[in-house]
Amino acid sequence: MQLGIIGLGRMGGNIARRLMRKGHELVVYDHNVGVVGALGDDGATATASLTDLIHQLKPPRAVWMMLPAGEPTEQTVTLLGEQLEPGDIVIDGGNTLYKDDIRRAKALRARGVEYVDVGTSGGVWGLERGYCMMVGADKPVFDQLEPLFEALAPGHGDLERTLGRNAPDDRAERGYIHAGPVGAGHFVKMVHNGIEYGLMQAYAEGFDIMKSRASEDLPEDERFDLNLADVAEVWRRGSVVSSWLLDLTAQALAGDPKLDKFTGAVADSGEGRWTIDAAVQQGVSAPVLATALFVRFRSQNEPTYADKLLSAMRFGFGGHVEIPQ
Amino acid sequence: MQLGIIGLGRMGGNIARRLMRKGHELVVYDHNVGVVGALGDDGATATASLTDLIHQLKPPRAVWMMLPAGEPTEQTVTLLGEQLEPGDIVIDGGNTLYKDDIRRAKALRARGVEYVDVGTSGGVWGLERGYCMMVGADKPVFDQLEPLFEALAPGHGDLERTLGRNAPDDRAERGYIHAGPVGAGHFVKMVHNGIEYGLMQAYAEGFDIMKSRASEDLPEDERFDLNLADVAEVWRRGSVVSSWLLDLTAQALAGDPKLDKFTGAVADSGEGRWTIDAAVQQGVSAPVLATALFVRFRSQNEPTYADKLLSAMRFGFGGHVEIPQ
Amino acid sequence: MQLGIIGLGRMGGNIARRLMRKGHELVVYDHNVGVVGALGDDGATATASLTDLIHQLKPPRAVWMMLPAGEPTEQTVTLLGEQLEPGDIVIDGGNTLYKDDIRRAKALRARGVEYVDVGTSGGVWGLERGYCMMVGADKPVFDQLEPLFEALAPGHGDLERTLGRNAPDDRAERGYIHAGPVGAGHFVKMVHNGIEYGLMQAYAEGFDIMKSRASEDLPEDERFDLNLADVAEVWRRGSVVSSWLLDLTAQALAGDPKLDKFTGAVADSGEGRWTIDAAVQQGVSAPVLATALFVRFRSQNEPTYADKLLSAMRFGFGGHVEIPQ
Amino acid sequence: MQLGIIGLGRMGGNIARRLMRKGHELVVYDHNVGVVGALGDDGATATASLTDLIHQLKPPRAVWMMLPAGEPTEQTVTLLGEQLEPGDIVIDGGNTLYKDDIRRAKALRARGVEYVDVGTSGGVWGLERGYCMMVGADKPVFDQLEPLFEALAPGHGDLERTLGRNAPDDRAERGYIHAGPVGAGHFVKMVHNGIEYGLMQAYAEGFDIMKSRASEDLPEDERFDLNLADVAEVWRRGSVVSSWLLDLTAQALAGDPKLDKFTGAVADSGEGRWTIDAAVQQGVSAPVLATALFVRFRSQNEPTYADKLLSAMRFGFGGHVEIPQ
Repeated sequence: MQLGIIGLGRMGGNIARRLMRKGHELVVYDHNVGVVGALGDDGATATASLTDLIHQLKPPRAVWMMLPAGEPTEQTVTLLGEQLEPGDIVIDGGNTLYKDDIRRAKALRARGVEYVDVGTSGGVWGLERGYCMMVGADKPVFDQLEPLFEALAPGHGDLERTLGRNAPDDRAERGYIHAGPVGAGHFVKMVHNGIEYGLMQAYAEGFDIMKSRASEDLPEDERFDLNLADVAEVWRRGSVVSSWLLDLTAQALAGDPKLDKFTGAVADSGEGRWTIDAAVQQGVSAPVLATALFVRFRSQNEPTYADKLLSAMRFGFGGHVEIPQ
Repeated sequence: MQLGIIGLGRMGGNIARRLMRKGHELVVYDHNVGVVGALGDDGATATASLTDLIHQLKPPRAVWMMLPAGEPTEQTVTLLGEQLEPGDIVIDGGNTLYKDDIRRAKALRARGVEYVDVGTSGGVWGLERGYCMMVGADKPVFDQLEPLFEALAPGHGDLERTLGRNAPDDRAERGYIHAGPVGAGHFVKMVHNGIEYGLMQAYAEGFDIMKSRASEDLPEDERFDLNLADVAEVWRRGSVVSSWLLDLTAQALAGDPKLDKFTGAVADSGEGRWTIDAAVQQGVSAPVLATALFVRFRSQNEPTYADKLLSAMRFGFGGHVEIPQ
Repeated sequence: MQLGIIGLGRMGGNIARRLMRKGHELVVYDHNVGVVGALGDDGATATASLTDLIHQLKPPRAVWMMLPAGEPTEQTVTLLGEQLEPGDIVIDGGNTLYKDDIRRAKALRARGVEYVDVGTSGGVWGLERGYCMMVGADKPVFDQLEPLFEALAPGHGDLERTLGRNAPDDRAERGYIHAGPVGAGHFVKMVHNGIEYGLMQAYAEGFDIMKSRASEDLPEDERFDLNLADVAEVWRRGSVVSSWLLDLTAQALAGDPKLDKFTGAVADSGEGRWTIDAAVQQGVSAPVLATALFVRFRSQNEPTYADKLLSAMRFGFGGHVEIPQ
Repeated sequence: MQLGIIGLGRMGGNIARRLMRKGHELVVYDHNVGVVGALGDDGATATASLTDLIHQLKPPRAVWMMLPAGEPTEQTVTLLGEQLEPGDIVIDGGNTLYKDDIRRAKALRARGVEYVDVGTSGGVWGLERGYCMMVGADKPVFDQLEPLFEALAPGHGDLERTLGRNAPDDRAERGYIHAGPVGAGHFVKMVHNGIEYGLMQAYAEGFDIMKSRASEDLPEDERFDLNLADVAEVWRRGSVVSSWLLDLTAQALAGDPKLDKFTGAVADSGEGRWTIDAAVQQGVSAPVLATALFVRFRSQNEPTYADKLLSAMRFGFGGHVEIPQ
């Protein structure tokens, strides 16, 4: 089928390419002329503006936005809302807050335009591995777009089937789901990212404990100078902690076991934060996910005011001076 | 090669079977006569006592203990120490604290007996998938036993090779490593389990947030009644959080999405605790691993004295009464 | 000066009484006729409705709401906004979210009505001890109301002066501050409550560790059957952890050391949650405050879905069965 | 009564002085000749060696060690054990691990020498405020030393009596307790310090949230430039979070609200760590106390290997680059 894509960065460009490989017809736009041209060379219809893109699409149109969440997406939704026609569909494949989806869908529906949110996981590897998608949409709209999700998803692949699974709907097994009404797709993707933070932090702490086991402060026979690249590698094979994040860890450590390339200031995205907001709103205990987020905040601020206040109190009650650095 | 195995439970029995399939000669003992007989039927030399087992082995002997950590293993080490001869090797494949390994190795070495610790991951799936092993041993002793590790390990399999890995030693890629001197094997396995707690807790919190999103306390258009079995299933395909633990989650949810079979009182083993002890000793920040452990403690004690004290304080300053249950 | 008070619960009633004791003139209303009558007996002007209250006050009026946050306060603000006149002042002394203050102040200002938020701490003890107040308001409005804050605050008392303090403004030393513009008062009070959760949880965990030290699982000479009432009492005297919350702990343990009266299901109020929302919004690491909140969530849900999922995974990889309860 | 003191640092010197003020007879020793002389000038019997100190004391002797925990205390116990006589008493007033107390008491008892552990809180303020003491000892030995504890403790003071307290034993109300057998004193003091970490961290996080509320990233009307010295000061008066640590916070902020004097590298002592070890051993959930400890570890290591690994994984799955610093 025909699809317009706005936003041809790492994710958007690869999504366009994967769809074309599967026989879909792409009309593309990005404010960066170069990437538009590159996709044109690969077979897409290159356009010069959002308005141009809309004109190149046959109604009922489907336009997939793959833009940074927040202002860039918001502005594009507004522009699309003004120019699209009843029956057209706006798809947000980015990392939008589910509450924004719900608000936008209401506004667009007033004009007869449909809105769909697609939580998309797969990162830079999606072109080859396929994308894992969680879709929030009215069911008929979802049905209309399903050929796209089918093409983007990894498919059954050679993954072993889940023991005991006998659901009649095999979409999940092919890599995409209709999660629920508008917002549900991004909600599930948000929690996915929240979990991701927790998983990453668990590995990070474990490897830190192993790294520091070589410390000369420890008794000599309890001191281990472990080959962490080998540890990550061996755990990939038959261990309980094998995962794709472990594969990436093994890869990072294979090339640079001391991780000297990195400063350790770890960014966080909105989804990690929104997951905690949701937990707090819902009254769900999520200490590991919250802690994983806070560790990132901490890494971005050195030293914190909080740490200084601890030092100040210690000085107050014990005359303790700080650790010299 | 010839190997004695003491302890033929789920793990020990399958280890024996996997070794026999690969052509090794097994002499086995367990205080449960039935399981000894069953392995005898499968081709092992069944023995009637630890002494009998020692007599059936040709020196230099290798004896693999696969017993519960603590007293059962400790007592067996003592008995073996009394009856084995210089050049013989005791292997502890269980979940022993690395400090106990170091202590025992010293004691046995005084009699010329070697000691090896093997951290073994793979659970009930190891017979088919192979076991992931982290070995602590003097290098020559490790070399002597290597045929066993090779046979037990999963091997290269069809797993994609880690990008950038070009270590000359491919043992890790075949599923076992010589982690370091005695104790190092169990130390690495201990951290592995500590990480496992963190990973499990991250998934558990995320799924809990999704589960409670159907709550009627939420605004109707922000309420999602998610199919968690489908979510777990779709994340297996191309998502960043895919892992073996996610596979198990998908499996559990496929059969029983409400998890009604479980009470939620979660046991913990020594290794989760020891990981925190090590972090504390080494001065490494491990808030996620510690929190994951504490969540288990909490699940075993309902209500806690701590919670009651919170209620008591609230009553004290605000006259607040408790939530009726 | 003259003040109207709406809401004569534990807090509102005592605030009215303390103000009258200091010579202020009170006009009061509550939907509960009985409490209105009781305050009338104590010297206040009792009124029969919000409209009646407004009529009894001389312009420019000041009306203090002491109502549950959320709907009850919101509705009252709306009604007051409709009936008050330019120059009048609405004071919210409850536990309102600072964002709601900011929104309401904007709406009221359009009608010439001022809005003030007062974070009030002191609980049931405030009538005697005085109330600690953090005020968010335009400075001239704050100045106008200052006699009320002075009367409600504890004053210098016999508290030792803070070493090194030489600020010209001694309001803080008398128990109230002009924290900043509208919203600032409730923001500071919100963080105060967030801290309170953390402090309470720290004591609760410590006493739990001491309580369980009598466990028969411990080696006999490391087992201590501690008198926790005495411990709390002795720490009140010269220890680093002395505090008002410790005083309350000592009080609770003096009467009921096993805390058998309590079930341990601990409620949480909006402010604990909003503190975490603020930390997340601001990118500040607040793991202790968040954990303290999550412990309360946990205490309200037994068992959690998260715990059950942990059990389900453990069953999946190791065939582990749950702890029998 | 007569008492020997070894170790005349900040704590030991002030303990000696407070005892002399109350009429006790002090015999003192420190390897620093200067401080011995100073106490001699204040009325103590100055001695030149540990052996000299023992000779100056009349049997049955009581010797109070006020030394750094670990090696210095251990060596002194060994020397005292060799030179003291049956009926003599060794008192450890330092921050020793309770397990070391238990071990030492056993060894000394074999020679007829008694051992007492005194957990002592009060810091540099003890000379004036008195010391809060938790004593682990056999009851008869405790009785023998009680005059010392009485003299050192703050006494009833003008602190309000705990509501509902009617224990016949008023020692706790005078500032010292017989916590239990040897080890119990240091155990209670250890938990005291564990709680202290949690309390400090709760305040630190709260003040950090308030500090960063002035950030220009926030919407202008939600931005508050709070006077934190005033906030701490006002909370001292009638608020729920008033405490001695808050007094110290107010003091620190009065002089240096930005805390520019401090680098934020916060030391930790053994007791914070041992508290977590105890919680883990006992299976008690202590997430706040553990987190408070880990925050200190984190502040001592910038950046952590864990943080770098997070960055490495993010680079792996998303090509994300780090935050520029």
